[in-house]
Amino acid sequence: MLNIVIAESALERVPKTIWRHPSVIARAKSLGKEPSELLLDRSYHHSAMNTLPKAEKRGRPDIVHMCLLNALETPLNREGGLRVYVHTWDDMLITISPIVRLPRNYNRFVGLIEQLYQKGAVPSKGETLLKIRVETLQGLLRHLESSVVITLSVLGQTSTVEKVVKPLKHLHNPTLMIGGFPRGHFSEDTILLSDRVQAIDPEGFDAWIVVSRLIYEFEKQSGFPSKRWERWGKR
Amino acid sequence: MLNIVIAESALERVPKTIWRHPSVIARAKSLGKEPSELLLDRSYHHSAMNTLPKAEKRGRPDIVHMCLLNALETPLNREGGLRVYVHTWDDMLITISPIVRLPRNYNRFVGLIEQLYQKGAVPSKGETLLKIRVETLQGLLRHLESSVVITLSVLGQTSTVEKVVKPLKHLHNPTLMIGGFPRGHFSEDTILLSDRVQAIDPEGFDAWIVVSRLIYEFEKQSGFPSKRWERWGKR
Repeated sequence: MLNIVIAESALERVPKTIWRHPSVIARAKSLGKEPSELLLDRSYHHSAMNTLPKAEKRGRPDIVHMCLLNALETPLNREGGLRVYVHTWDDMLITISPIVRLPRNYNRFVGLIEQLYQKGAVPSKGETLLKIRVETLQGLLRHLESSVVITLSVLGQTSTVEKVVKPLKHLHNPTLMIGGFPRGHFSEDTILLSDRVQAIDPEGFDAWIVVSRLIYEFEKQSGFPSKRWERWGKR
Repeated sequence: MLNIVIAESALERVPKTIWRHPSVIARAKSLGKEPSELLLDRSYHHSAMNTLPKAEKRGRPDIVHMCLLNALETPLNREGGLRVYVHTWDDMLITISPIVRLPRNYNRFVGLIEQLYQKGAVPSKGETLLKIRVETLQGLLRHLESSVVITLSVLGQTSTVEKVVKPLKHLHNPTLMIGGFPRGHFSEDTILLSDRVQAIDPEGFDAWIVVSRLIYEFEKQSGFPSKRWERWGKR
């Protein structure tokens, strides 16, 4: 089982200090919601975000959406070999059933996550697909009991996707951590939780591209491409 | 240079026959636009789309958005080794400057493409980044003068991403065609334009996952990962 943790993600509800900002009120009104129910989103709350600390790392639910669509629709996940976790900037943790089919449409995804924040789990009937709770990264990693935690960062040791992934197939329950934020770097706390910090390219990539490449390479190293044809019966 | 063509994409403006449908009028009103200016989007026009022919292959601008974000933010594109084209269901062609930085936010992307349909090119000032014109796939391929056109389809010959991509680095200006639609298969016309039709997995993948894997594998086969570290200077 490969664990992917989208860590310190730029996902949270609009904080109380800017509930009364005109851009927040206007957005809430147009959606028929309360400011407190909305996800913080730089596309709509740009001017309101100026007053927030560490604003450059916040308010980008689209990054989480893209990462999840690139992770969950892969053979590795479909065959039960992947667990994806979203840890947020403010220490919330979203756990995701591998069988969830997330909305492709961004607005519907945001609506779903807003509902998740309100109810704690979705859907309200039937099998739970998404859950959210207060949890630190440290708490999550303790629970995962990984043999190794590798964090991807442009500040890490020079490597490539292939070199990062190659040793993992022999290890029990490895974890890869990718930053779910648009700019800046991991906090020192996150780095200290990592066994290794590795860079896969001299320039940074968008998080969803990192997720996509790591999963594909893991599938390759595990022999997925040919195994799948054998199992499904070659035509 | 690698060409990627997102072909028969589910991207178009709302067709005239459903301009007066309540779901279209409501959406147009909420955006302060005319029905004729809107992109067709199943998320908002689901009931109106029932009357459209081949509706299952239409109205999914999010697929194009995801494909482009997975293609344009790669080292291959940043280093000028990639050209991406969006061909639509109704034979429109969008040409894309490799230096464009597309909106990450879906609603902003849709707004940009709506503007593109109205003006023919964006932005209106400065260097043109996106252009749209009437063009068949045949016309595009004649213009590209590729040594080989490979179409990815679950109905194609059994292969893997690695096997599809490996021979390409020795070829002049190869073209990979990926379907930009949610369901169904390429038209016979598109298949006839292909030198080879290949399947990379027994199940179909979402288009953006195919795009992402093809580009990464092409970079690997071209020695990008180590070359980039050498060029940027290893730390």
